[in-house]
Amino acid sequence: MKYGAQNKIMAKVKSVKTGDIMSQVKFDVSVPVEMSSVLTTDSVKDLDLKAGDSVQLIIKAIHVLPVKE
Amino acid sequence: MKYGAQNKIMAKVKSVKTGDIMSQVKFDVSVPVEMSSVLTTDSVKDLDLKAGDSVQLIIKAIHVLPVKE
Amino acid sequence: MKYGAQNKIMAKVKSVKTGDIMSQVKFDVSVPVEMSSVLTTDSVKDLDLKAGDSVQLIIKAIHVLPVKE
Amino acid sequence: MKYGAQNKIMAKVKSVKTGDIMSQVKFDVSVPVEMSSVLTTDSVKDLDLKAGDSVQLIIKAIHVLPVKE
Amino acid sequence: MKYGAQNKIMAKVKSVKTGDIMSQVKFDVSVPVEMSSVLTTDSVKDLDLKAGDSVQLIIKAIHVLPVKE
Amino acid sequence: MKYGAQNKIMAKVKSVKTGDIMSQVKFDVSVPVEMSSVLTTDSVKDLDLKAGDSVQLIIKAIHVLPVKE
Repeated sequence: MKYGAQNKIMAKVKSVKTGDIMSQVKFDVSVPVEMSSVLTTDSVKDLDLKAGDSVQLIIKAIHVLPVKE
Repeated sequence: MKYGAQNKIMAKVKSVKTGDIMSQVKFDVSVPVEMSSVLTTDSVKDLDLKAGDSVQLIIKAIHVLPVKE
Repeated sequence: MKYGAQNKIMAKVKSVKTGDIMSQVKFDVSVPVEMSSVLTTDSVKDLDLKAGDSVQLIIKAIHVLPVKE
Repeated sequence: MKYGAQNKIMAKVKSVKTGDIMSQVKFDVSVPVEMSSVLTTDSVKDLDLKAGDSVQLIIKAIHVLPVKE
Repeated sequence: MKYGAQNKIMAKVKSVKTGDIMSQVKFDVSVPVEMSSVLTTDSVKDLDLKAGDSVQLIIKAIHVLPVKE
Repeated sequence: MKYGAQNKIMAKVKSVKTGDIMSQVKFDVSVPVEMSSVLTTDSVKDLDLKAGDSVQLIIKAIHVLPVKE
């Protein structure tokens, strides 16, 4: 199975909180991962991003898709 | 600075590939992280997600927002 | 009315489930549709996508925007 | 393999257009599908959505994730 | 025409920059607007959001859908 | 602090409505803003977007990320 997405992170479910329509699931990620971001070239220039820079990667929980075998 | 998002991951820029409109940036994440997903309660039931389950978290690169101090 | 999006699918509401903040709506799509995806060129190569390939298109419900006249 | 997303559509690749960073892939969907949207309860009320209503579902191509076995 | 989205902002096109696959469009918004965000209740608590607070709203350009009559 | 996103809008919290999993926050934006959209070049051609055109910008609330100092 191959996914058309750059970020594929192995994780373990820590907790599940079930709501009326939406639910929230928390995961532990124990191994180092490589991640990838696509942003406008304008934003890359604004941030002056270059190899070695420390950044924080912000991802809304709604954009994380769990897949289970 | 506090972000209205559940996933905040410390990372280091590995490479930057600049395109005409969009650019792609790759990062190394070396420390273990906790991650969070919000999905429909229907999907949680379909996947029968429960604590301890192994899953893969798929995130399109376009949804990863780098922030730099 | 013209939308700055590639996917425009005619559908009929099947059910509405109302929650406190979010609601979930299900639709029937009866006519064949053409769909479009944008992904990184890296991902296209990883999947080795070419005309005729069978794939599954995964879309989180949160990314579907209903419009009504 | 089970996905934490409500929309899973069988499709066939029609064309691939490769760009510097991003690529665009077009698909044919020939069988009827059921689709699902999550939106705010406020928006459901604004649209007065109810069973039988005809709507158009708008999805940006960037939100469509192809998966290939 | 009614949209299943909380944010509907009147704007005027300022510039269009066309790329191979993706293009970037800039807009002027001259009138005051009301905007809306949906986030996890956990994040609302983390930010301790309450009426009167000053915040910055961050939106990736890819999530902005232009509609033209 | 610099964000890898084109849209950064100063706003004031107007109301917070807390739900089980997700919450909805409304904001007032009083100053004129410049906004930016990234869409496929195909969509720019379909809409025939050019400087001076009036458009409506549609953004699902789920894609708006509040940041607070």
